[in-house]
Amino acid sequence: MLSIHVLRYRTTKNYDMDIECRNRIGFDFSEGSGKTLHGVNPVSNTMIPDKFFTATPEDVDEAMHKAQTAFQKFSTTVWEERAAFLESIADEMEALGDLLIHRASEETGLPEARIIGERGRTTGQLRMFAQYIRTGNWVEATIDTAIADRSPVPKPDLRKMMVPLGPVVVFGASNFPLAYSVAGGDTAAALAAGCPVLVKAHPGHPGTSALVGEAIIKAAQMHDMPDGTFSLLYDNGFAVGQALVGHPYTTAVGFTGSVGGGRALFDIAAKRPNPIPVFAEMGSTNPVILLPEALKARSKEVAQEYAASITLGVGQFCTNPGLLFGIRGEELEEFKSHLKTAFIGTNPGTMLHEGIGKAFMQKSNKMLSEPDVAVLVESDKEATADQVRPTFATTKGSEFIKNPSLHEEVFGPFSMLIECENIDELDHCIKALHGQLTGTLIGEPDDFENHTALVYELQQKVGRLIFNGVPTGVEVCPSMMHGGPYPATTDSRFTAVGIHSIKRFLRPVAYQNTPHPLLPGPLKNENPNKIMRLVNGTYTTEPV
Amino acid sequence: MLSIHVLRYRTTKNYDMDIECRNRIGFDFSEGSGKTLHGVNPVSNTMIPDKFFTATPEDVDEAMHKAQTAFQKFSTTVWEERAAFLESIADEMEALGDLLIHRASEETGLPEARIIGERGRTTGQLRMFAQYIRTGNWVEATIDTAIADRSPVPKPDLRKMMVPLGPVVVFGASNFPLAYSVAGGDTAAALAAGCPVLVKAHPGHPGTSALVGEAIIKAAQMHDMPDGTFSLLYDNGFAVGQALVGHPYTTAVGFTGSVGGGRALFDIAAKRPNPIPVFAEMGSTNPVILLPEALKARSKEVAQEYAASITLGVGQFCTNPGLLFGIRGEELEEFKSHLKTAFIGTNPGTMLHEGIGKAFMQKSNKMLSEPDVAVLVESDKEATADQVRPTFATTKGSEFIKNPSLHEEVFGPFSMLIECENIDELDHCIKALHGQLTGTLIGEPDDFENHTALVYELQQKVGRLIFNGVPTGVEVCPSMMHGGPYPATTDSRFTAVGIHSIKRFLRPVAYQNTPHPLLPGPLKNENPNKIMRLVNGTYTTEPV
Repeated sequence: MLSIHVLRYRTTKNYDMDIECRNRIGFDFSEGSGKTLHGVNPVSNTMIPDKFFTATPEDVDEAMHKAQTAFQKFSTTVWEERAAFLESIADEMEALGDLLIHRASEETGLPEARIIGERGRTTGQLRMFAQYIRTGNWVEATIDTAIADRSPVPKPDLRKMMVPLGPVVVFGASNFPLAYSVAGGDTAAALAAGCPVLVKAHPGHPGTSALVGEAIIKAAQMHDMPDGTFSLLYDNGFAVGQALVGHPYTTAVGFTGSVGGGRALFDIAAKRPNPIPVFAEMGSTNPVILLPEALKARSKEVAQEYAASITLGVGQFCTNPGLLFGIRGEELEEFKSHLKTAFIGTNPGTMLHEGIGKAFMQKSNKMLSEPDVAVLVESDKEATADQVRPTFATTKGSEFIKNPSLHEEVFGPFSMLIECENIDELDHCIKALHGQLTGTLIGEPDDFENHTALVYELQQKVGRLIFNGVPTGVEVCPSMMHGGPYPATTDSRFTAVGIHSIKRFLRPVAYQNTPHPLLPGPLKNENPNKIMRLVNGTYTTEPV
Repeated sequence: MLSIHVLRYRTTKNYDMDIECRNRIGFDFSEGSGKTLHGVNPVSNTMIPDKFFTATPEDVDEAMHKAQTAFQKFSTTVWEERAAFLESIADEMEALGDLLIHRASEETGLPEARIIGERGRTTGQLRMFAQYIRTGNWVEATIDTAIADRSPVPKPDLRKMMVPLGPVVVFGASNFPLAYSVAGGDTAAALAAGCPVLVKAHPGHPGTSALVGEAIIKAAQMHDMPDGTFSLLYDNGFAVGQALVGHPYTTAVGFTGSVGGGRALFDIAAKRPNPIPVFAEMGSTNPVILLPEALKARSKEVAQEYAASITLGVGQFCTNPGLLFGIRGEELEEFKSHLKTAFIGTNPGTMLHEGIGKAFMQKSNKMLSEPDVAVLVESDKEATADQVRPTFATTKGSEFIKNPSLHEEVFGPFSMLIECENIDELDHCIKALHGQLTGTLIGEPDDFENHTALVYELQQKVGRLIFNGVPTGVEVCPSMMHGGPYPATTDSRFTAVGIHSIKRFLRPVAYQNTPHPLLPGPLKNENPNKIMRLVNGTYTTEPV
């Protein structure tokens, strides 16, 4: 018989899918205190009737104890098993079929095509990590063999590798219901590292979270992963998140969201008796520098490209270009004129949920009320009550330098052109910037040759420097750096995208004079998997 | 004419050496507010007459501005120049000859032979980093080339490498006047990374600090490094340290010392508008597990080895073994008897300064006043008024589990044997431990086979796991991990010793679709230095 807490759906393909409405405490369930939350369709502004139980601090404690108990077995699973587990999560997500696509689209207002693309990215990330952990290179094996006759003292045998930190807490992101939520990048990296994961579902998409959560549980059971490897908790307030970050067993936190939210979690983690790292990806205005020769050569093309980038996904990408900088003159006027033409026809859109839409209205209005800030162009398309209208503002470089409010991110389809008097003022503007995920330079070869100092200054502020492109579109590959100095993230030394994001959840351990049978596999003399190791100062895939 | 702020010394080798008594604000000097501090010879308990000016917050601000200005030039010096600069620091330190040895010994009470050894380690570290940055492997170059015809969107060209964070603040350590002070491991790693360094001299050894500071300044001027690459500030209070950690231009902090001191700096850094990483190496009791078969086979040898390790350098190594665990029985009684014999003859010693000596007396007395803690053996050698007496205490496993006070570090020659009823109680003791720099297992092959769970539990708590040895003696090599979970350090993901300690002061930057001439050298297609790079997923030293 079907549990009363499971909603059975008949998919368009004529098979049944279940949505579990309770918190997942490992393989068990909890109704918490009995309070519930529900999703809202932001396009129709109607409540989605399915109710999800919010967790209690006791649920958090139980899930953390399970995670801590699961840690030993899970962290010492052989790589092949963990890789297969990750691949099965991807398979199970795909098996959810249209139900997942419909539900994610319904809960976020994002078009189905976008959700389908995001699902591809999410399953791609899971499979990428499966492949990566099989290589063994992620343990960064380093070996220095003994020198027994060294004077004055013998050199011991020392071998070092990365090991998982322990249970990791992941906060689902509103703007990526799949790729940065329940089985998103943070979860995939932490599980790949060998860390049990506890996800706090984003309250904006509980049904999507539940579906993906069940995919993970199913995969965990299929591969005999220990109970507690994964838990999923719901809350539409702060108590569960705070309890998760403050719990003694938590060893790291992944978060994508606002500066306010990320900083609050960072502060809780920093005040713990034993502080833990928080990897919060937060606010970024992703500055774009328009250099004069480029505008001379192709201002129309750039204007069109940027009108599209700014409004992509209703401006809800963390790499949305919020600030454009140019130097006053004929070229910039021409660019503005092209931008107006291209931008006026952009489409209004519905933001992820009502709260984000309201915040957009409030923040964009506040920005437009700052001294010397004016609207350059707005979309003139008709907008329904739930939609927001793309807006492009303009201000002066001197204002930008002196008014800190102009540096704040307006999350959504809002950008601002900063018109500088000259290259010196532009340089000052860049120096005044906060840390950013990305910085973009639009220039011709002559531009770069004339302004090498600008290129350097911008690099100091960013995690990714882009030449002649748009910052939206984050390639998932080893050389991606998705991160940057504060407030783009709370830790500029790590990327949140790509294989190297696993580094966030690992720490090195050295083994001294360890009897060979007791050495972990990657540090034994034999090297059957041909791991790249640093042996006595030289990189090699050979055995010792 | 000699400045009145320079003390000229005639060395034993008949040449003159100068000690600068003012703060070094880059290449300039400051007398601060005019207040001074002076060193004390802890053995004779007499003041060393040379006075050093304490810095003001204004000095900090000026030094930080210089560092920030120097950052661009210094961070973009070619590797060969930076390597030569590091080597010259080592050369200049050696050129200080006996004056440095005498002064460091005089200010710390450490024997000259130990200081000579420590100088060798310090210059060795500087030369190790010189060699390492020449390899280029530290930039962790990662390249993914473009795929123009990829569907649905072209793949951009992405290349990633590590870049320096910015100005780094280093706190001199009392227990390593050379190897973890002015030109010690943190300074060497930060300079190697391309970060300007501001050192807050430890007030316990100002003369040593001044001499080494001048060696760095001389080397910087010799290699035309920018003014601000290095500054040296004195203070015997907290104001200068707090101002340094709180300064907006500071990007990271290195510290070795007490949990109280390290945590205070961590808290300042975490509360900044833009939080920065603090690498504080703090308290560790370095637990040692004595397994039954090993005690059966060689309890006398182990007892002798540990009596020596515990009292090495008057117990002032951060890896000093403070806690030994064993299981009650005949073997343990035999070990205790051998330990008494070996330990009773150990020498009392003078600690680094009067304050540390007093803290030792207070903390060891407090420990001995805890319930069920008793002295097992004390050195019976005569001790002068300034010396402390090595002490070995004993308690029960059940007490250790329930009394958090027994987990605290007693910095100095104090250790405690925890006698457990059985293997289960020992396992509980290990589970109850805080994070540690090291954990040691003394065992025979049978012991390890019988107690695999113990090995795993201990690994969870430590940065370095040692088999059948002593934790004192930290090998400087790539596979060393000198760090560990809190409170051993504030960031378990990084080592403070060896080439990989450079990672603390670097962050990744990705370059997207960058015109080839604008790419940093390590990311260009050519690879003249044969750097190990990850190119399209494969490690190679070949060009692209």
